[in-house]
Amino acid sequence: MIAGETLPAFARAMMDGYAVRAADTHGASEQSPAYLRVIGDVPTGVVPGRAVGVREAVRTHTGAMIPPGADAVVMVEDTNLHGPSTGSGHAEVEVLAASPPGDNVLAIGEDVTAGTVAVPAGRRLRAADVGGLAALGVTRVRVRARPRVAILSTGDEVVPAGVRPGPAQVRDVNATTVAAVVTAAGGVPVPCGIAPDDEVALERAVRAAIEAADAVVLSAGSSVSVRDLTADVVARLGAPGVLVHGIAIKPGKPTVLAVCDGTPVVGLPGNPASALVVAWRIVRPLLRLLGGEREGGSDFIDDRETDAVLDVPVPSRPGREDYVPCTLARGGDDVLHATPVFGASNLIFTLIRADALIAVPLDRSGLAAGERVRVIVL
Amino acid sequence: MIAGETLPAFARAMMDGYAVRAADTHGASEQSPAYLRVIGDVPTGVVPGRAVGVREAVRTHTGAMIPPGADAVVMVEDTNLHGPSTGSGHAEVEVLAASPPGDNVLAIGEDVTAGTVAVPAGRRLRAADVGGLAALGVTRVRVRARPRVAILSTGDEVVPAGVRPGPAQVRDVNATTVAAVVTAAGGVPVPCGIAPDDEVALERAVRAAIEAADAVVLSAGSSVSVRDLTADVVARLGAPGVLVHGIAIKPGKPTVLAVCDGTPVVGLPGNPASALVVAWRIVRPLLRLLGGEREGGSDFIDDRETDAVLDVPVPSRPGREDYVPCTLARGGDDVLHATPVFGASNLIFTLIRADALIAVPLDRSGLAAGERVRVIVL
Repeated sequence: MIAGETLPAFARAMMDGYAVRAADTHGASEQSPAYLRVIGDVPTGVVPGRAVGVREAVRTHTGAMIPPGADAVVMVEDTNLHGPSTGSGHAEVEVLAASPPGDNVLAIGEDVTAGTVAVPAGRRLRAADVGGLAALGVTRVRVRARPRVAILSTGDEVVPAGVRPGPAQVRDVNATTVAAVVTAAGGVPVPCGIAPDDEVALERAVRAAIEAADAVVLSAGSSVSVRDLTADVVARLGAPGVLVHGIAIKPGKPTVLAVCDGTPVVGLPGNPASALVVAWRIVRPLLRLLGGEREGGSDFIDDRETDAVLDVPVPSRPGREDYVPCTLARGGDDVLHATPVFGASNLIFTLIRADALIAVPLDRSGLAAGERVRVIVL
Repeated sequence: MIAGETLPAFARAMMDGYAVRAADTHGASEQSPAYLRVIGDVPTGVVPGRAVGVREAVRTHTGAMIPPGADAVVMVEDTNLHGPSTGSGHAEVEVLAASPPGDNVLAIGEDVTAGTVAVPAGRRLRAADVGGLAALGVTRVRVRARPRVAILSTGDEVVPAGVRPGPAQVRDVNATTVAAVVTAAGGVPVPCGIAPDDEVALERAVRAAIEAADAVVLSAGSSVSVRDLTADVVARLGAPGVLVHGIAIKPGKPTVLAVCDGTPVVGLPGNPASALVVAWRIVRPLLRLLGGEREGGSDFIDDRETDAVLDVPVPSRPGREDYVPCTLARGGDDVLHATPVFGASNLIFTLIRADALIAVPLDRSGLAAGERVRVIVL
């Protein structure tokens, strides 16, 4: 967004005090004050009635317009007023400190200049950004639409969360957790239900999901046959098809990444904890890009990632990124500390007890106590 | 939320392979395999037709129900199948590794036990939390209502953002930025417009704001007279009234904290950048508490706060918390680095160029390059 005007549009007082000609305070001190004639009072929101002349002063207030002629504000704390404080200019102000030109004045254009970039494109609008737009009178702004994300669960054993599962059945957890991650990442979840592990039905469901949305997130079972079925179906639905089948992270290895005629398709593992880790790690940045956020540069820093000090060693196997559930606490040293959570990392209820996931880099065979680690806040 | 049932409700395979009696694989190795009779195949979602007997195995799949009699799953990678892979049990599986009891089996209750706390109260529901609720079939849950926050701007010089300001007037920025912070903190903004710097009108407006909401956020001018006016008005509107008038942070010193008959009232400085800093630092945690989040404990960690390494020294004056706008970037060392942004910290457009605020503690006379600092992500 290019600024359509210059702000502030007029010089404003940044302190309560007296608007003066800086030259008139030159050399002023407690020992040798300058004495100026107070010719009026300009409250905020009021246009000054007359200019400040030589050896004159106007009472001013934080945010008020600086009268013509004045180029500095002497803080009220650096003055003594003699004579009537209101009226027709009989009062005199004793100035106990010199004010250089521009002192306590917010100059025209100091905030933003017309024609310059006021708010950069390529990021989600933040509180400061919408504030800057409001300052410029911009109350409507063109934005990228939130990406619509079709969420499809698969599995013969999976029933909707609101349905009582029969024997050997489980409720659909991933539809709920993925929708929460999609919403948090700025997307709009488009629920597409549950497809059975059947080639024809699955293909029909995935095709409908691709047509319904800007991106598709499947959660498939993690068995080899189901993974292969999912990959086969996705491969047929558009070019270039499956790009990646299996990624080097734990939990989350059996992930499928595909693009079908321009629509990204992410196949998450069926295990709810694995699916959630991959959703944070893959789906979230994907949605930020689809939503128009610029990759690279500090704007793309993930505000769900932070740094912490590891309290105990964490074992790992090199060759995969490990995500280890942990709690976070700010220690007496005012530093965030991460403590791994007891419990299997592939259980959703372990994640519920955790605040974050410790990211163990691909090439590390574990992390030592006291190390700085990167964590993803859940 | 107390779990109403135990999950998993049945023992499930965590791998593709063979459900077996662990004892039958005792001592098995590549040199000395165990040979088991394959009596069937239990897909996911299907109840096993019969139990696994001595020296028998059932083909199983990740997520499938473990048949009675079996207490371990041998991974398919540790087996060789001889004879027909389907049919009436003529096949034999060669087991190349011993599986101890429970191996690759998710036991009943391993995720959550009926009667235990499934999701703790006192925090915002996260993706994992709603996933856990879905796993338990809980599709509706009682939550604390979002706190309603009345937002009232004041100032004779302030006009709504959609109105062209006259000479000496400025647009209302704080209504927009505070609403964004309130929304991000889980509250519902209740816009209450702009009140003039007039005692009667201001009192009427603040009284209406208190009646309309669970909390009130005023932004008043920063001139002494306006601050005193605001404090006077708030002091009259309920007990105990003004608690704090002026806080030791910069920017943001002219802040008023009050409670009027149980309704928190925060008076922000009129300067938009100061108001935004205080909104992050005071209004946001207040709303989290009003929203039912538990103070203390790792659950109350602010996910907008992170740690970073400071790249250049930052001067400060002891006796106040300084908030210094900065950019953030993840360095080659995989650590977040904070670099102060050039520009006056009291300008909203300086904040627009920043990613975060460096918090300089109260007692510090500056921070050194290389120091770890706490930052609030904007």
